[in-house]
Amino acid sequence: MVDGCPPRIPLSESDIQPFMDARRPGTSRFVTQRKEPDQVRILSGVFDGLTTGTPISLMIENTDQRSKDYSEIKDRYRPGHADYTYDAKYGHRDYRGGGRSSARETACRVAAGAVARKIIDGVTIRGAVISIGDQDIDRARWDWDTTSNNPFWCPDPVAAQRWEAYLDMIRKSGNSVGAIAEVHADGVPVGWGSPVYAKLDTEIAAGLMSINAVKGVEIGDGFKAGRSKGTDNADEMRLGPNGEIEFLANHSGGVLGGISNGNTITARLAIKPTSSMLTPTKSVNARGEEVDVVTKGRHDPCVGIRAVPVAEAMLACALADAFLMHRAQIGTPE
Amino acid sequence: MVDGCPPRIPLSESDIQPFMDARRPGTSRFVTQRKEPDQVRILSGVFDGLTTGTPISLMIENTDQRSKDYSEIKDRYRPGHADYTYDAKYGHRDYRGGGRSSARETACRVAAGAVARKIIDGVTIRGAVISIGDQDIDRARWDWDTTSNNPFWCPDPVAAQRWEAYLDMIRKSGNSVGAIAEVHADGVPVGWGSPVYAKLDTEIAAGLMSINAVKGVEIGDGFKAGRSKGTDNADEMRLGPNGEIEFLANHSGGVLGGISNGNTITARLAIKPTSSMLTPTKSVNARGEEVDVVTKGRHDPCVGIRAVPVAEAMLACALADAFLMHRAQIGTPE
Amino acid sequence: MVDGCPPRIPLSESDIQPFMDARRPGTSRFVTQRKEPDQVRILSGVFDGLTTGTPISLMIENTDQRSKDYSEIKDRYRPGHADYTYDAKYGHRDYRGGGRSSARETACRVAAGAVARKIIDGVTIRGAVISIGDQDIDRARWDWDTTSNNPFWCPDPVAAQRWEAYLDMIRKSGNSVGAIAEVHADGVPVGWGSPVYAKLDTEIAAGLMSINAVKGVEIGDGFKAGRSKGTDNADEMRLGPNGEIEFLANHSGGVLGGISNGNTITARLAIKPTSSMLTPTKSVNARGEEVDVVTKGRHDPCVGIRAVPVAEAMLACALADAFLMHRAQIGTPE
Amino acid sequence: MVDGCPPRIPLSESDIQPFMDARRPGTSRFVTQRKEPDQVRILSGVFDGLTTGTPISLMIENTDQRSKDYSEIKDRYRPGHADYTYDAKYGHRDYRGGGRSSARETACRVAAGAVARKIIDGVTIRGAVISIGDQDIDRARWDWDTTSNNPFWCPDPVAAQRWEAYLDMIRKSGNSVGAIAEVHADGVPVGWGSPVYAKLDTEIAAGLMSINAVKGVEIGDGFKAGRSKGTDNADEMRLGPNGEIEFLANHSGGVLGGISNGNTITARLAIKPTSSMLTPTKSVNARGEEVDVVTKGRHDPCVGIRAVPVAEAMLACALADAFLMHRAQIGTPE
Repeated sequence: MVDGCPPRIPLSESDIQPFMDARRPGTSRFVTQRKEPDQVRILSGVFDGLTTGTPISLMIENTDQRSKDYSEIKDRYRPGHADYTYDAKYGHRDYRGGGRSSARETACRVAAGAVARKIIDGVTIRGAVISIGDQDIDRARWDWDTTSNNPFWCPDPVAAQRWEAYLDMIRKSGNSVGAIAEVHADGVPVGWGSPVYAKLDTEIAAGLMSINAVKGVEIGDGFKAGRSKGTDNADEMRLGPNGEIEFLANHSGGVLGGISNGNTITARLAIKPTSSMLTPTKSVNARGEEVDVVTKGRHDPCVGIRAVPVAEAMLACALADAFLMHRAQIGTPE
Repeated sequence: MVDGCPPRIPLSESDIQPFMDARRPGTSRFVTQRKEPDQVRILSGVFDGLTTGTPISLMIENTDQRSKDYSEIKDRYRPGHADYTYDAKYGHRDYRGGGRSSARETACRVAAGAVARKIIDGVTIRGAVISIGDQDIDRARWDWDTTSNNPFWCPDPVAAQRWEAYLDMIRKSGNSVGAIAEVHADGVPVGWGSPVYAKLDTEIAAGLMSINAVKGVEIGDGFKAGRSKGTDNADEMRLGPNGEIEFLANHSGGVLGGISNGNTITARLAIKPTSSMLTPTKSVNARGEEVDVVTKGRHDPCVGIRAVPVAEAMLACALADAFLMHRAQIGTPE
Repeated sequence: MVDGCPPRIPLSESDIQPFMDARRPGTSRFVTQRKEPDQVRILSGVFDGLTTGTPISLMIENTDQRSKDYSEIKDRYRPGHADYTYDAKYGHRDYRGGGRSSARETACRVAAGAVARKIIDGVTIRGAVISIGDQDIDRARWDWDTTSNNPFWCPDPVAAQRWEAYLDMIRKSGNSVGAIAEVHADGVPVGWGSPVYAKLDTEIAAGLMSINAVKGVEIGDGFKAGRSKGTDNADEMRLGPNGEIEFLANHSGGVLGGISNGNTITARLAIKPTSSMLTPTKSVNARGEEVDVVTKGRHDPCVGIRAVPVAEAMLACALADAFLMHRAQIGTPE
Repeated sequence: MVDGCPPRIPLSESDIQPFMDARRPGTSRFVTQRKEPDQVRILSGVFDGLTTGTPISLMIENTDQRSKDYSEIKDRYRPGHADYTYDAKYGHRDYRGGGRSSARETACRVAAGAVARKIIDGVTIRGAVISIGDQDIDRARWDWDTTSNNPFWCPDPVAAQRWEAYLDMIRKSGNSVGAIAEVHADGVPVGWGSPVYAKLDTEIAAGLMSINAVKGVEIGDGFKAGRSKGTDNADEMRLGPNGEIEFLANHSGGVLGGISNGNTITARLAIKPTSSMLTPTKSVNARGEEVDVVTKGRHDPCVGIRAVPVAEAMLACALADAFLMHRAQIGTPE
């Protein structure tokens, strides 16, 4: 359910579906083999091809659930999963696929992100995986066009090839591996965001951290800034050919004091290895007995890959929110 | 203004002041030399020594402002500061000390955090600086008692000594430097937080990222998890002597699926070097001219030090919120 | 979408459907002749017959829409309807049945109200129509059991008979008529609500006023209190047989200072006559021409009748919210 | 604390003080004899005479509190007051003047309303008392200029004179009396508000109902609409001399489907007689004993009079909110 979308924006399922397809499982041997078409239907909020300004209800139905895959984990808590915390909190949980903690929940985020992109039409949002396990890209080879030519959203064609062999090894050993992704937004004007509450960087960080399995978030230089000197971190300013302000660097990731500065917004997120593995792990069950857990379901060896379209969506949502709030705060420039 | 504090909690200024004093400027040569007593007064919400359940209004008055220190930056944008983004957004800003973007704003956070600590009485919240610039602590020497025996909240007595010389060098060279801090919460029971919205880790990350100058946030292993294998990241479970669930590791930082798992909550934050330096930096002014900026005000060479009490406060606030929401969701256990 | 429902509450479609049936159109000649089964399906948030604590998604599909009935009003604004304001605000609207301003929207409210009732299990919520047009009930004959024995939710069997003839006359003359309804909640303990924000009476009033066509709301004596003396309005207190506080009257409608006082919560709402009539009314169209409008769709001659289950639902929702907030504020009594 | 005010709006204490003076106690023998200057100070959010876009902190200090007046009611619950409900909810309350349930709380509302008026600069907001007890005005004599020429905000000069004698009688008999007030907003353009959540009439009703002692709220014809026929309630439309839409009546009070229609917004509110009276009333005390209560403090015989500036303020706040939300939803018209 997407509320707050302005009226008269052209919107149809075909604006959303490509992003669903990007996140969709089953597209390569490096992601879960569930076959979900992830077909999105617009149930409300659009009339005659235009948004009406009222809530947009989007529905994506599951078609390939195999609940029996999960019967073994009905009573046993998978380490690193929410099984135990859900049970302890609620005294009751939908164990099939993890219920609400399933990565399928991110399909909704991607659909919402597609709507958010339409709201901030002039902004370009792109994402990439910059490392899988300890295998980094070489930023000198960064090429955005490459990201869609390999199954990893990898912007470095050389690394992409290396990752194939690496991930095959991980997968065959019944293990899983973490990843680090980076998302950019180009075209955000100066002024979006707020000084203390709803800071733009806070909202972006919150959106990214709320994605399943994300354990760290950076804006701009991030942790590197925490190890730098002031002289190395300064985003100095000069005037461009038409008298406009230009930044000589972008250590801040496009946000100063919670407000966009006109530079590219950059953020990174660390995604932990999925806890669902074929390797047995020590656990306990709901009856208070020690057990070993092997998860036989069809899982991603590196859930970080499919996190890219989700992270892009969260960035789009944070920016659309900031844009709409900016309109309330300041009005529309003439 | 602190709203939502339950009634009948003993509260007085003396519960808050020690935390204010911890954040207070002017306490050593490594922090800004402004002399602010940061005396907090409770204006409402407390009667006969107990909270009434109604909003608690806290006031901290500035006494050592020297607005003339800022006259030079009235029209020129300090690189890395919010001067330019505020002006561009609002067309008008309070330039004295950066107005709302001043680090003085964090005094309010610390006061609120002291109230939050009273709400979650059984939880212990502590923080430390784990690196200044490229100078790391040795975690093997970690001693919480040490943090209050040096001006850096440093848990490693050897590193603390080294940092004195290092920061003197930074300060004398007219430069500044970043830092990384870590905060822990012990005693959080299993069950606080929510599955998708208001996840506990999201709320903690948002609280930390909203602190001035913070550029990165991690929960548990954070970015290291993004470089790990599943077998290295698993927080396996076993039964303790009394049949209670015990985690054999805490890579997840005490949060699984957005909900606390009973382990120590751990988070880290990267604080960029303050942009206010004696070293000149290239900038522009409000009249569209290129200028060099030197900030003569009394600034912290490493603003990350004073971020520790603020980060503790934000962690306390996020936990108090989660606790109160948990009470709404589940009720109080008998 | 119902968010915030606590876990482990037994819930199935059969808990909701009876309330849907009460609001359902087509049940007598005094309400619209649309035939909608208003079958509710639970899509999420319930597992093994118990709520999981996660959002409950409810779906009610339209089956008897006849969009062609509305083709005549596509371009002409029905007086008293939202046609003109929607077009002026959004520049675009779904004209079929009024889109989001259709009274069908209240079906969702009734479904949500059924869930809310489960959350506040010990509270009894009932509603009645106390006047149609200028035809009042006699409160001396009030009998709750009567309300379900006539098509008007009328608690006075004599008035119910009179209303049949009266409404037949209204309907046959191509006119419509307003009504006043009253809702009660018994069993609300003392203490729900808040002093300034989220006052219980404010929340109830807001819930009732948000129902389509409602133009007035009263708590307790309401407007009569505005015409009374203090001595006539005092809800004096005495001790009951077991030392408990008893109120000798209930002018306040069960709320004092925004907080429930243990008495029956009482509220009234005025519902305007539906603006969709067979009688022609002067209007303009979207092309800026003067027109006469006759609405041929199947409309309620007295939309106030079907407002009763909706008003009950809004009262239930306001109380469930207050209960959950009270749990956060105070915890659960042992 | 007023958050969300746009930047660059001229604002000083002198914009707020006149409204404070209008609500101020001690201005005639018909209101409480407390002498409070109600001097407002702006602590933040304004710089060089213009709002900065950041929160505006306003402070009004009490100067004439006489806590000893209340010592008698420390342990006894005044009927019709929040004393009992506060104690029952919180187990602890500030009994002096009712604490947070004191009508002094409305001073803050008036100050906030003055800021709201600046945000919606072209809108004129006015209020009047239309009845005191059973003494109505004659609407045919309505004259807005009269309202400030008598101590009752009475728009009918004849009724104003009659009310003097009436209220003297009430006051001398140790009694109190209710009132009904009406507020208008002229100049609201078509389009403010929303279809289901945050309907304009809901927000206005909630604002008015949240004022102390208010028990009923109407928009437009209100309860009269509940007694009307459709043909009598229709706000028919015709074209004006310049082709603009004109409504031939305003039964709806300027709101259709939750959205303003360009007409005058009209609302009424019923204020109950103050429960603080010199006439003894039956009550109980905190020790569970039956007592008689006489309130000796300095109270308003008709608290409804001083409700007028408060109701105007709440209307201004609801409209400013709707305006800002409209800007977010639609943007600013060119």
